[in-house]
Amino acid sequence: MVAFDRIHYGADYNPEHWSSEVWDEDMKLMTESGVTMVTAGIFSWAGVEPRPGDYDFGWFDTVMDKLAASGIAVCLATMTASPPPWMTHLHPEILPVRADGTRLSSGARQQFCPSSEVYRRYAGRLVEQIAARYGDHPALAMWHVGNEYGCHIRACYCDNSAADFRNWLQNRYGDIDALNDAWTTTFWSQQYDDWVEVFPPRVAPTFPNPAQQLDYHRFSSDASLGCFLTEQRILRRVTPDVPITTNFVGLVQKALDWHKWTPHEDVVSLDSYPDPYDPRGHVEAAFGYDLVRSTKDGQPWMLLEQAPSAVNWRNRNSPKAPGAMRLGSWQAVAQGADAVLFFQWRQTSGGAEKFHSAMVPHGGRETRTFREVSALGQELAAVSQLAGTRVRADVALLHDWESWWGLELDSHPSDDLRQLEAHLAHYAPLFDASITCDVVHPARELSAYKLVVVPNLYLMDTEVAANLRRYVEGGGHLVVSFFSGIVDSCDRAYLGGYPAPLRDILGLRIDEFWPLPEDGSIGLKFADGTDATGTIWSEWVEPEGAEVIAEFTGGELAGKAAVTRHAFGAGAAWYLASRPDADGMRTLLDRVAAEAGVVPVLPGLPEGVQAVVRDGKENTYLILLNHSGEEVTVPLPVPAPDLLTDPGLVLDRVSLAPRGVAVLGRTS
Amino acid sequence: MVAFDRIHYGADYNPEHWSSEVWDEDMKLMTESGVTMVTAGIFSWAGVEPRPGDYDFGWFDTVMDKLAASGIAVCLATMTASPPPWMTHLHPEILPVRADGTRLSSGARQQFCPSSEVYRRYAGRLVEQIAARYGDHPALAMWHVGNEYGCHIRACYCDNSAADFRNWLQNRYGDIDALNDAWTTTFWSQQYDDWVEVFPPRVAPTFPNPAQQLDYHRFSSDASLGCFLTEQRILRRVTPDVPITTNFVGLVQKALDWHKWTPHEDVVSLDSYPDPYDPRGHVEAAFGYDLVRSTKDGQPWMLLEQAPSAVNWRNRNSPKAPGAMRLGSWQAVAQGADAVLFFQWRQTSGGAEKFHSAMVPHGGRETRTFREVSALGQELAAVSQLAGTRVRADVALLHDWESWWGLELDSHPSDDLRQLEAHLAHYAPLFDASITCDVVHPARELSAYKLVVVPNLYLMDTEVAANLRRYVEGGGHLVVSFFSGIVDSCDRAYLGGYPAPLRDILGLRIDEFWPLPEDGSIGLKFADGTDATGTIWSEWVEPEGAEVIAEFTGGELAGKAAVTRHAFGAGAAWYLASRPDADGMRTLLDRVAAEAGVVPVLPGLPEGVQAVVRDGKENTYLILLNHSGEEVTVPLPVPAPDLLTDPGLVLDRVSLAPRGVAVLGRTS
Amino acid sequence: MVAFDRIHYGADYNPEHWSSEVWDEDMKLMTESGVTMVTAGIFSWAGVEPRPGDYDFGWFDTVMDKLAASGIAVCLATMTASPPPWMTHLHPEILPVRADGTRLSSGARQQFCPSSEVYRRYAGRLVEQIAARYGDHPALAMWHVGNEYGCHIRACYCDNSAADFRNWLQNRYGDIDALNDAWTTTFWSQQYDDWVEVFPPRVAPTFPNPAQQLDYHRFSSDASLGCFLTEQRILRRVTPDVPITTNFVGLVQKALDWHKWTPHEDVVSLDSYPDPYDPRGHVEAAFGYDLVRSTKDGQPWMLLEQAPSAVNWRNRNSPKAPGAMRLGSWQAVAQGADAVLFFQWRQTSGGAEKFHSAMVPHGGRETRTFREVSALGQELAAVSQLAGTRVRADVALLHDWESWWGLELDSHPSDDLRQLEAHLAHYAPLFDASITCDVVHPARELSAYKLVVVPNLYLMDTEVAANLRRYVEGGGHLVVSFFSGIVDSCDRAYLGGYPAPLRDILGLRIDEFWPLPEDGSIGLKFADGTDATGTIWSEWVEPEGAEVIAEFTGGELAGKAAVTRHAFGAGAAWYLASRPDADGMRTLLDRVAAEAGVVPVLPGLPEGVQAVVRDGKENTYLILLNHSGEEVTVPLPVPAPDLLTDPGLVLDRVSLAPRGVAVLGRTS
Repeated sequence: MVAFDRIHYGADYNPEHWSSEVWDEDMKLMTESGVTMVTAGIFSWAGVEPRPGDYDFGWFDTVMDKLAASGIAVCLATMTASPPPWMTHLHPEILPVRADGTRLSSGARQQFCPSSEVYRRYAGRLVEQIAARYGDHPALAMWHVGNEYGCHIRACYCDNSAADFRNWLQNRYGDIDALNDAWTTTFWSQQYDDWVEVFPPRVAPTFPNPAQQLDYHRFSSDASLGCFLTEQRILRRVTPDVPITTNFVGLVQKALDWHKWTPHEDVVSLDSYPDPYDPRGHVEAAFGYDLVRSTKDGQPWMLLEQAPSAVNWRNRNSPKAPGAMRLGSWQAVAQGADAVLFFQWRQTSGGAEKFHSAMVPHGGRETRTFREVSALGQELAAVSQLAGTRVRADVALLHDWESWWGLELDSHPSDDLRQLEAHLAHYAPLFDASITCDVVHPARELSAYKLVVVPNLYLMDTEVAANLRRYVEGGGHLVVSFFSGIVDSCDRAYLGGYPAPLRDILGLRIDEFWPLPEDGSIGLKFADGTDATGTIWSEWVEPEGAEVIAEFTGGELAGKAAVTRHAFGAGAAWYLASRPDADGMRTLLDRVAAEAGVVPVLPGLPEGVQAVVRDGKENTYLILLNHSGEEVTVPLPVPAPDLLTDPGLVLDRVSLAPRGVAVLGRTS
Repeated sequence: MVAFDRIHYGADYNPEHWSSEVWDEDMKLMTESGVTMVTAGIFSWAGVEPRPGDYDFGWFDTVMDKLAASGIAVCLATMTASPPPWMTHLHPEILPVRADGTRLSSGARQQFCPSSEVYRRYAGRLVEQIAARYGDHPALAMWHVGNEYGCHIRACYCDNSAADFRNWLQNRYGDIDALNDAWTTTFWSQQYDDWVEVFPPRVAPTFPNPAQQLDYHRFSSDASLGCFLTEQRILRRVTPDVPITTNFVGLVQKALDWHKWTPHEDVVSLDSYPDPYDPRGHVEAAFGYDLVRSTKDGQPWMLLEQAPSAVNWRNRNSPKAPGAMRLGSWQAVAQGADAVLFFQWRQTSGGAEKFHSAMVPHGGRETRTFREVSALGQELAAVSQLAGTRVRADVALLHDWESWWGLELDSHPSDDLRQLEAHLAHYAPLFDASITCDVVHPARELSAYKLVVVPNLYLMDTEVAANLRRYVEGGGHLVVSFFSGIVDSCDRAYLGGYPAPLRDILGLRIDEFWPLPEDGSIGLKFADGTDATGTIWSEWVEPEGAEVIAEFTGGELAGKAAVTRHAFGAGAAWYLASRPDADGMRTLLDRVAAEAGVVPVLPGLPEGVQAVVRDGKENTYLILLNHSGEEVTVPLPVPAPDLLTDPGLVLDRVSLAPRGVAVLGRTS
Repeated sequence: MVAFDRIHYGADYNPEHWSSEVWDEDMKLMTESGVTMVTAGIFSWAGVEPRPGDYDFGWFDTVMDKLAASGIAVCLATMTASPPPWMTHLHPEILPVRADGTRLSSGARQQFCPSSEVYRRYAGRLVEQIAARYGDHPALAMWHVGNEYGCHIRACYCDNSAADFRNWLQNRYGDIDALNDAWTTTFWSQQYDDWVEVFPPRVAPTFPNPAQQLDYHRFSSDASLGCFLTEQRILRRVTPDVPITTNFVGLVQKALDWHKWTPHEDVVSLDSYPDPYDPRGHVEAAFGYDLVRSTKDGQPWMLLEQAPSAVNWRNRNSPKAPGAMRLGSWQAVAQGADAVLFFQWRQTSGGAEKFHSAMVPHGGRETRTFREVSALGQELAAVSQLAGTRVRADVALLHDWESWWGLELDSHPSDDLRQLEAHLAHYAPLFDASITCDVVHPARELSAYKLVVVPNLYLMDTEVAANLRRYVEGGGHLVVSFFSGIVDSCDRAYLGGYPAPLRDILGLRIDEFWPLPEDGSIGLKFADGTDATGTIWSEWVEPEGAEVIAEFTGGELAGKAAVTRHAFGAGAAWYLASRPDADGMRTLLDRVAAEAGVVPVLPGLPEGVQAVVRDGKENTYLILLNHSGEEVTVPLPVPAPDLLTDPGLVLDRVSLAPRGVAVLGRTS
């Protein structure tokens, strides 16, 4: 675990894009803009090893020395994110291969098969050099291993990956009969007689074996993790005291099971790029922040990349409006970040990301962007007391990569069911109600939460079901939405009426799934007479003890249960057989939260205002973020000063401009 | 030809998915649900030959014995539908290749090139074993060769297929000059000097030679037929008295020319999966049933697969509403099926089709589906007298796979012209008018039909044109729609004014095609003042003897002929230069049918009610099917009992609930 | 340079499609329809060289002799457009490869890698034969080299192309450091240590290096040019006096940089296929005609291919309405063409283009098409005095293939910015205002133009910026639209505020781009109170001397400059920070044109009427084209006779039927 003494501020720093004269200007402008940390050298491999084994670190030494002299901490990259052209030329077999057999080319980045021993050997050799050379450098604060693992290469299907997959399977299953059982290979005559007959789920005449696909997701996450660990182990050995991180790709990336990665990191980092065109982009970002924080048990995390303004990789790329970058940065801090960094320091003149914004734009110092980032740098410097404080939540949403992979397999009742949309459909109403959430793994101890929400957790092993049973029996309030608890960890349906492992908890049985047609909807009527609209899904529910809270209206299921509640043990378990639209979900979750005793951070907040508490040993801080386009006034429950304006002036109400932020100091 | 003594009922049976304890329960539940036949072992190859030449039939013997003991007939699969992993590992060259060179992988099903001698050799060796072992087994009723040929692999483009294609071409054309002539290779400098220069129509810089594409459709159908015949010949030799079938893929599959297959089968079988979301799905199904019946001259056929409820392979999969499965099953029987089987008996826990419904769902015996399939089993058992009766039609639609392939080639006047839509546009109004149709090959003797409809029969050899000429001269009524008779069997346009081979029959000449823009329409005005809307197409018609029945309105063709009628010989030939919308087509075909003396099965039927007569040597049966959501009452022309309710009670009117069915016994 | 003594008329002639009896009928029908020139033998390679080195020219001799005897000039193809099957069979390595590695097949056309030395060697050997055999043939008028280079194969990515690309790069950059600099390979660790490490921009994990992509466009155009030059050099040597052309693909083809090709041609030729469904298709065609004429400094050009009626390669293919083919042909002549040819003479019975119209349709002589093309042949024969006259323009639009390639690279602020749409958005209002334009290269001397329009010229080297500066300083009127002058010829952004090389001329600085969301728009308000709507783009403009002509309304940029005008030197420079919709652009360009002293050909023309002047040494001719569906009357500024009706009758007004044409003779 890493403890910062301030909210670090800075950017990716790629000095090789510029001549050394520019480096001197960089140091000046970094100081001017409040930069305290850079993550340097991410793409410097070809620069420091221009040909195999021929190292040229001199220029990078200069950069490190200048940074040290400027008092800027370096989160030093291991430089392995993009192997130099000489490597893929010498070893074309390391180039990744798609499921259809297309071998990808060099000329971009991330052009390596994660299972490649060749790549790992070269990468390890470089990391040895870097660790030895810079392990004691005064600028060195942390290690940044690799970069955005799994961003472009979510899986490789080459023959080398196939061999690695076979090893992985042998470790997992031991013998081929266990594999056959786990994969239900009796279906479609797929029984394997020998490991050599097993392949990645490449393009096939029709749907490949789903358990094979599911295991390939697991394997691919582990293959990238193997790359990370190759480097992490070297660093741990050579520099045991230097903390290690790597940057996950946000909002959330499907490719990597973060839960299996974070135990190997000292601090968890996220890259976050909400779309400025999206008026609800901050809600998606909020979900990602709560999730990444929860993967490391609430420990402060690092926003390792965000855009100062526009990105370059969408079809259309909006800049951030005045104030939006500040607001988004403060949102990350509010939700537990102790560092705010950008991609990148200085906008590159050429290359694939030259139209990605940077702290120093093409236009230089005299630009709106540089002015805004400099102002934020000053602001963050003034609130170092926030560092190390924690966000606490009474509500947990369950999130599991294995279930995500399972949920989105093909040949399901409906392809409209996407995990991230499912999570956001449940998360957004809680966010709007000013209820702070954690987003945790389903096997985690849950008893500390007042409310647990389970959005379409398709894959569920029996331990998870037992965990949920214990939670409700012990008095917990549980909300489960449809298509949860359907299959085991091998994607085998539980028999005996859906969702078999949860039937007793929920007090019902599902006879059959009735997914809605494309863009279809179905009426829901609550017992109190209110109506809502269900989307995506319906199903034939047979209550077996559960109370019917809402019924379907219209169609074949008219009059049948749509939402139920079941008193179980000392708690209660709710079930949603459809996905209510946003209003319907808000009404329902408000009701459940109230019953569970969950209270908002601040009641009666104006629409669009987010409130989060960061809780320290001695003080708590209330951060208010106005995501709306209106000026609003928020009465404070306890008078407190706004640390961003006048820390000496205690306020009983705060006025927030559009995109405005306030940080209120409160005694705990 | 096969004569059943009952309407057989059952499902695909895949015992390898389950342990032997479950088999015993299967026997009990089969009896309970009225199962009389299963088609077993379709995907058992890896189970009975777990490694090359190492056979393990013991477990399958047990299954066969249990079935025999339960009195259940077995339509025994040759087990060759999905080669085991050991085969594709030992012989990766049998894996199919797409037109772009992508070699498909194992891990799904149908992973073999139809031209592969290796596959055929292994398959033949297995079939020898199976035929020898089970040829005299008391449970054996029929052979089920392969499975759904051409479903996923419609064509393979590998080098082995290329070699096989060359052989096929040499057989067809004899010498390379004949090939050059047939393919018009003078166009774009494509003259071949030697057979080795010929390839499948793989992805090319632009449109590949259309005659080459057309022949590749023919060849690919024949390549799959070759697989079928490899097995069929072994079975004929070893078990000459056991009937043979294979299951075609419905609605209709473009890949296989059924007309070339059915002479080699004793009974023809169809898999039928109308989409429950589609309110007109039963009309599409009806077309498929009339076609499949007609490919075997009206002989009873087998519905070899349908879903008890939902399938798993669409993007969204609706279950069948209560009653819908029964109604659809009876529809197949009404249209000539003597067997109704499902995929599959018991819903698999794992694998790619675990969310495909089955007679015994994941939820087991206590499910709506099991209740409904059991009720239907009892019902079918009570009407064994229907078996062997025939459906008779006065109207024929012409359907030809070669013309279908030709019609949908690229670089045509309009890509909007799709054969199946074309057929349904002509078939649906006749269906709605309660007129029974056959769907027959164009070269077939037609004189027995009162009306012949030719929906966009693009490719037409001169024999077919002569057949149509004879038919009309002899007094027949003919309806031809646009873009018919355009090319010969080598996709060469007939010269001298379209449609050259039919111009004298139709009494007109087409100067030029005027396809409509995307989603465009054109007005049609009939001589009696009524209007209709044309879709997809218009053209510049010069009548040369034909009477103008309707004109185009608006646009460049305003005032020109759109629909014509030509008295020719003792008959009359109608021509449609556009495709009227549904109402216009109904009005027009009603008029033509009346003139031709075609009468509905029952006049004045309520909307949505289908009526079909099955005609036996001694009795005829009138089957009424209510596809609507309303209860209706149908007066009967001749009082008769409903065999499904009280065979002793003679009715003069029948009441049909929504999705209701009645089977009325009538003396011939 | 070639000087015709008439407006040539004819078609592609492919005699190998037909037997020799048909050739005799061809000669009669050519004479009947006024054909004076055919371009023959384009796809005759397999016919004249049926196997390697085995030539059979006898049949082609016969054709040439017949044409000579009929007095028909031959633009003789070098026959290399489609290599025979024997070649790709012997040398499969010449087949082109896509960026994803798919090797394309034979069976269509253009199946050769432009960098293939094997192909070039075979092609050269054939051209030697043809030049020697027909160089003195009385029918020979011109050489037609290849055919539609770059139409289907815009780039090849095979290993042979990779090697050729490396050579091309070495020629361009000399040493690897220069390449690294030009490509900004420091970005994403792409520094090359050796040329062998460089590859084409094949499919990669994410965006390939943009400078590499840009150079691959340049290289690919040059590779096709290399094929052309291989043949051109042989022809120049063997037949130095025979003029040479090749046919570009219109409207405009992105693949080839015509400016680098036309110096090697004696006359420039275009294939033009506007879509008859498109009511504004003639405006797009007009742009292509003005561009192709300008690439050869206004010298008369040849319309080498157009369709007599429908084409076959769109998804839906409309014929040309009566009169439309004549109107479109006259439009080409009006805009400077001295030849009007069709693809093709006689509609092929088989092959991929059998539904492409021809002068002699499938229906033969008794067809609307043959009647209309024959009438046009007579008409053109009567105006031979038009040949050699010139079109003159006061307005230039700048067009540059390198900037086009750059503009449409990936990872830009918006993918909605497409070069051709950009050009048409600026060209169409000028066309509608009856203002004649040239479309010229940006480095060309501009002082003769009263107005220069620069539509989104993204890539601009410093010489071009200097050229524009000189032009405005010298009194020119310049209109520049957004995202111009952004990068240098290596796709490196100019630093120091966009658009750095033009900031002084325009008197402004762009702080940041604000592209609009999909289908978005933004309000514009002009100083005079009128409103318009901006599309695609907006941006944050900081005027630095420029006058604000219009402001944005609404959104973050409300009140900021949207259109500006800057007096600079003796001229004025306008800037558009968005793309006004059609009406707004028309209003704006009308104002600028008026200020620049640009006048329409004829003022106050009815909507849809195009007027162009062809200017000869002694006479000028005013050609009026009615693209509207209404009859119109046009008063003439100077009384003149209509050469198409009665050359002896001087008119002071001309009446034009829908799709009508008039050619008015005027004394210069």
